[in-house]
Amino acid sequence: MAKKIKAGILGATGMVGQRFIQLLEGHPWFEVSEVAASERSAGKSYLDALEGRWKFPAPVPKRIAGMTVKECRPGLDCEIVFGALDSSVAGPIEQAFAQAGYAVSSNSKNHRMEKDVPLLIPEINPEHIKLVDLQKKNRGWKGFIVTNPNCTLMGPTLAMKALDDAFGVEKALIVSMQAISGAGYPGVASLDIVDNVLPYIGGEEEKVETEPLKILGKLNGNMVQFAPIKISASCNRVAVRDGHMCSVSVQLKKKAGVGEAIAAMEAFSGEPQKLRLPTAPEHAIVVRREQDRPQPLMDRDTGRGMSAVVGRVRKCNILDLKFSVLSHNTIRGAAGCAILNAELLKAKGYI
Amino acid sequence: MAKKIKAGILGATGMVGQRFIQLLEGHPWFEVSEVAASERSAGKSYLDALEGRWKFPAPVPKRIAGMTVKECRPGLDCEIVFGALDSSVAGPIEQAFAQAGYAVSSNSKNHRMEKDVPLLIPEINPEHIKLVDLQKKNRGWKGFIVTNPNCTLMGPTLAMKALDDAFGVEKALIVSMQAISGAGYPGVASLDIVDNVLPYIGGEEEKVETEPLKILGKLNGNMVQFAPIKISASCNRVAVRDGHMCSVSVQLKKKAGVGEAIAAMEAFSGEPQKLRLPTAPEHAIVVRREQDRPQPLMDRDTGRGMSAVVGRVRKCNILDLKFSVLSHNTIRGAAGCAILNAELLKAKGYI
Amino acid sequence: MAKKIKAGILGATGMVGQRFIQLLEGHPWFEVSEVAASERSAGKSYLDALEGRWKFPAPVPKRIAGMTVKECRPGLDCEIVFGALDSSVAGPIEQAFAQAGYAVSSNSKNHRMEKDVPLLIPEINPEHIKLVDLQKKNRGWKGFIVTNPNCTLMGPTLAMKALDDAFGVEKALIVSMQAISGAGYPGVASLDIVDNVLPYIGGEEEKVETEPLKILGKLNGNMVQFAPIKISASCNRVAVRDGHMCSVSVQLKKKAGVGEAIAAMEAFSGEPQKLRLPTAPEHAIVVRREQDRPQPLMDRDTGRGMSAVVGRVRKCNILDLKFSVLSHNTIRGAAGCAILNAELLKAKGYI
Amino acid sequence: MAKKIKAGILGATGMVGQRFIQLLEGHPWFEVSEVAASERSAGKSYLDALEGRWKFPAPVPKRIAGMTVKECRPGLDCEIVFGALDSSVAGPIEQAFAQAGYAVSSNSKNHRMEKDVPLLIPEINPEHIKLVDLQKKNRGWKGFIVTNPNCTLMGPTLAMKALDDAFGVEKALIVSMQAISGAGYPGVASLDIVDNVLPYIGGEEEKVETEPLKILGKLNGNMVQFAPIKISASCNRVAVRDGHMCSVSVQLKKKAGVGEAIAAMEAFSGEPQKLRLPTAPEHAIVVRREQDRPQPLMDRDTGRGMSAVVGRVRKCNILDLKFSVLSHNTIRGAAGCAILNAELLKAKGYI
Repeated sequence: MAKKIKAGILGATGMVGQRFIQLLEGHPWFEVSEVAASERSAGKSYLDALEGRWKFPAPVPKRIAGMTVKECRPGLDCEIVFGALDSSVAGPIEQAFAQAGYAVSSNSKNHRMEKDVPLLIPEINPEHIKLVDLQKKNRGWKGFIVTNPNCTLMGPTLAMKALDDAFGVEKALIVSMQAISGAGYPGVASLDIVDNVLPYIGGEEEKVETEPLKILGKLNGNMVQFAPIKISASCNRVAVRDGHMCSVSVQLKKKAGVGEAIAAMEAFSGEPQKLRLPTAPEHAIVVRREQDRPQPLMDRDTGRGMSAVVGRVRKCNILDLKFSVLSHNTIRGAAGCAILNAELLKAKGYI
Repeated sequence: MAKKIKAGILGATGMVGQRFIQLLEGHPWFEVSEVAASERSAGKSYLDALEGRWKFPAPVPKRIAGMTVKECRPGLDCEIVFGALDSSVAGPIEQAFAQAGYAVSSNSKNHRMEKDVPLLIPEINPEHIKLVDLQKKNRGWKGFIVTNPNCTLMGPTLAMKALDDAFGVEKALIVSMQAISGAGYPGVASLDIVDNVLPYIGGEEEKVETEPLKILGKLNGNMVQFAPIKISASCNRVAVRDGHMCSVSVQLKKKAGVGEAIAAMEAFSGEPQKLRLPTAPEHAIVVRREQDRPQPLMDRDTGRGMSAVVGRVRKCNILDLKFSVLSHNTIRGAAGCAILNAELLKAKGYI
Repeated sequence: MAKKIKAGILGATGMVGQRFIQLLEGHPWFEVSEVAASERSAGKSYLDALEGRWKFPAPVPKRIAGMTVKECRPGLDCEIVFGALDSSVAGPIEQAFAQAGYAVSSNSKNHRMEKDVPLLIPEINPEHIKLVDLQKKNRGWKGFIVTNPNCTLMGPTLAMKALDDAFGVEKALIVSMQAISGAGYPGVASLDIVDNVLPYIGGEEEKVETEPLKILGKLNGNMVQFAPIKISASCNRVAVRDGHMCSVSVQLKKKAGVGEAIAAMEAFSGEPQKLRLPTAPEHAIVVRREQDRPQPLMDRDTGRGMSAVVGRVRKCNILDLKFSVLSHNTIRGAAGCAILNAELLKAKGYI
Repeated sequence: MAKKIKAGILGATGMVGQRFIQLLEGHPWFEVSEVAASERSAGKSYLDALEGRWKFPAPVPKRIAGMTVKECRPGLDCEIVFGALDSSVAGPIEQAFAQAGYAVSSNSKNHRMEKDVPLLIPEINPEHIKLVDLQKKNRGWKGFIVTNPNCTLMGPTLAMKALDDAFGVEKALIVSMQAISGAGYPGVASLDIVDNVLPYIGGEEEKVETEPLKILGKLNGNMVQFAPIKISASCNRVAVRDGHMCSVSVQLKKKAGVGEAIAAMEAFSGEPQKLRLPTAPEHAIVVRREQDRPQPLMDRDTGRGMSAVVGRVRKCNILDLKFSVLSHNTIRGAAGCAILNAELLKAKGYI
């Protein structure tokens, strides 16, 4: 590839913004050319704007550290922007970029459920990318917005997709044990989580119960027909740094044994694997046989943080099967998925 | 009460044994007269036998500290023994005590599911205590064994009982997030749980799926008819010191709204409350309205660790209702329940 | 005592403010009559103003929950105010109260080092209370300010006092491992402390190195002559909820063996013990002989959180002796000490 | 290099044994040819012998997983053995190997302080390797033993060496905050460390106070003349997975400013750097300028876990300078150092 595509990061100083910078360092197709954040940060060097909040052991890439932080307004020197803004401000900013001709790959929730905005997990619904054409037409935009889903549903939805393809999924009951990094920085106060579990995460259960229906839905012409699956979610926060764990029970249309379910998940592969997209893990789903896996500490970096790790597949006394599934919330569940989305856009000629 | 009933503790140096000693200190009816443990400890003073492993901030009660630890064999100077032995050795030892005429209130799993052994939660099935008569007759024993259930099911089963009485419970799907004290001491290695979740606890799910069926069952003559409820359990360990949290979904025979379910749980009261047993909490179930409760850290000591604390009662998209429930695993879920069982035995004239 | 003294809490919604409310509940001499906080909270009920941030398992005392939060301005219906304000605002507010005739017992750092303001640990320097007379005269105030020191130095300074009285202390090298509650709420982000140690706490080392010199100083007429002790402090934050631990080495004027040092600390008793002040612990210093104590989890509540707990007293290869000392940072090190100061004021006729 | 040197691991299934296997995977000079452990493990495949206790996210190297575990007795097919045995058994086993002609690079404490056994940190005292000749002669062994020191002193001793070379070190007062992995597996019980600090680690302070004197000592003919430095250590355990932190104060012969001390530490380089040994970090000491570094979480993997990371260099009110220093306890402080020792042996022609 002769020349890399210039990319800007919106919300570059936050947790997910930092992940974008980390994951895009040395990326074969994209190159961070702009970092943008709040007015307060604008004008400072990226390093200064961080105010000591860089959250990774490896230092800020030198090239990025010295960049001047811009405001989150069109005019950035790049073709694509990755959106890591807080949802309180992301909506109109992303629209402004799309209108101005930028491709926007957003991790924010604001536009996810809009009818002409793809909510993408490239292994699951790459064909939804076509909504981009409708979106541009509908809105008269030169650019467009694609989104990735909430971090918590990532593992369960990849597993559901594999099972849905093979047997049909009717119901999924999901109980999450989520990592503190999911709340950003400073995020969860230590006094709230050391020696504790929080049984509530604002807005989370609604997203886990609805976003998968769109992702697993079929594109009928210009419409995504939501998947006829019932999902029930209970979301808890635990004292883990990274990696959202879920205990999941599913009901299938066509009954399947444990072995068949494992086989279906292990056989599962999608467009990113076929296209060998740079950020695609070799296996979107890895199934562990040990009785005590997955564990956040041991498994969150599987596939460089891009694989969902499933374990303990077994019969459920109420629905058909149950299992544990883990995925890295700020890689697979956020920045990594948004980058994979951008790679799909590139591979499909949208950028 | 003129004179207290003498009580012995089997397995007095372990986590649950220590809880017995702590909870019985100053008890109005019982008085610890004997502490028994493994051969290795026998002959030492209780304090020496602890080898520094006393796990509570308040010191070992002085009277107990100096007691000579005995072996776990009949001949102890007491009327009742509280069983806190590891299940690898508890079975024959408890039998020997029962045979020798002692009342045994056991926290071990060994005899729980035997047909003529009561598996008691005094608020739920006090009438099962009558199995004691059958047991003595069947086995020709002068004494007898009563048991309390596994710690994890305590909160969900109390909640289920209240809902079952009011509406009938058909199914319960339980996902637990369990405290490290549940594994005893040394128990869970810190390297296994700091920054981690363990998705597996040996033997736990089986107990959570079966023991409640006996507890919620009906006594028909001499037989407990198991409750026709389907339970599915997924058990996880988290980095919390005390207090087992569960996310529970239930299906009811008679549909009930959130308000009705809360009302049923708040109205729930049992024999221990009626009899004003010393260890009985004022409310067996406390329902919190805040959206982020219960939390182990904040709620585990409710009712001096004897109340189940329920919160987040809401509709479930798959079964009917869902909620979080917390109970203190070594108090309500172990030593506290065994003491409450003994109080019931006393109140009913069995000792 | 016929009637309790009315007390107001400045900064009542924060961590230390909440501690004041908790510790004053049922206090025999004082009664909270006013709760004051920022403009944002003013006008709301205390419960509403907390916005769910009450940090103790026991609920907000009912009488307090319904009180209307006032602004932090004179006019409060009380004789004494306890100051738990952030140091960014505490200075002028406390002055205004003192000027208006209130007794101010402050936990904030702002006035601690002023020449006519007592910096009190009642067991150590009760006679410094006389600075109040000078202060009122100097400043023409009807009321006055007394302060308690930084939380971290509390344990080491109580130990130093006992050793200083007996042998003279020349040097003290202090390395702290401090609890997260010391930073207030939300305070330390969980991402900063789970699986981590922070080797820096802003401003802390300066306070630990200088405040004890005033506290241990002699009152010469109207002047506190600072103690000629060299202190070096290194302050670290660890993942502990409550209880600041310090590893301390001291150099003594008159050499003393380990046994003598322990004897001096155990014999130490002060004015609060003599006067039997309600909040005074029986022993200001408790010395543990076990080789692995003190521990925050096990020892922080010793003396209802008001005792400093010392352990591992042994020879130091560089200075003379070394030991570990723990004290509860929000009780002994903050609200509890401020209340003890107020009790001393009362006992000495200042209020 | 034509052919790799065959290496055996003694105590291969424990924490440090696993680290050896992890760090030697792909090593350019050494190749694990034998894994040895207790009788109980002998005869099993390495994977089976682990019984699920592999403590790293990356899986057991395939080649190793299938190896048959041997007993820890000479006869192993290798030239060098790396010793990761518990000190309760390491002594005679290591001797037997040395006697039988093997080079032994041991992490166990047993032989460290023997007069003819090198206690090596290759950046500090590579010349001590000559004791090997004496040792072979003295003991009539064909092989020999070299040792690496206790994990905790690693960071402080590297820093002391740089300062000693430049200014002379007279005294060092060290307070450690040590990671749980330092106690092996299962090691520290979670109930002992969640929400806690342990102020005592058996035998640790003695090692930290004496081993550096030998390491920093001068080789005079056949004798190591211990360094005339006074060290005082206080060792604490905290809830951190990996990375031992120390707060250190030092007294220097020749006074030095903060800038000079930093310069000396940054300029420090040793034989491993000169020889470009494969495991040598580029910088044995890395000095961070941020006021809140080093931190275990952020800095433990610096130099692939082989650098000591220093920060907060500043004046001490009692000794001359103080600073924080961190090093990875199972890499730099154990297996990594033993491998570096073996590389030095190879480079110097001892194997």
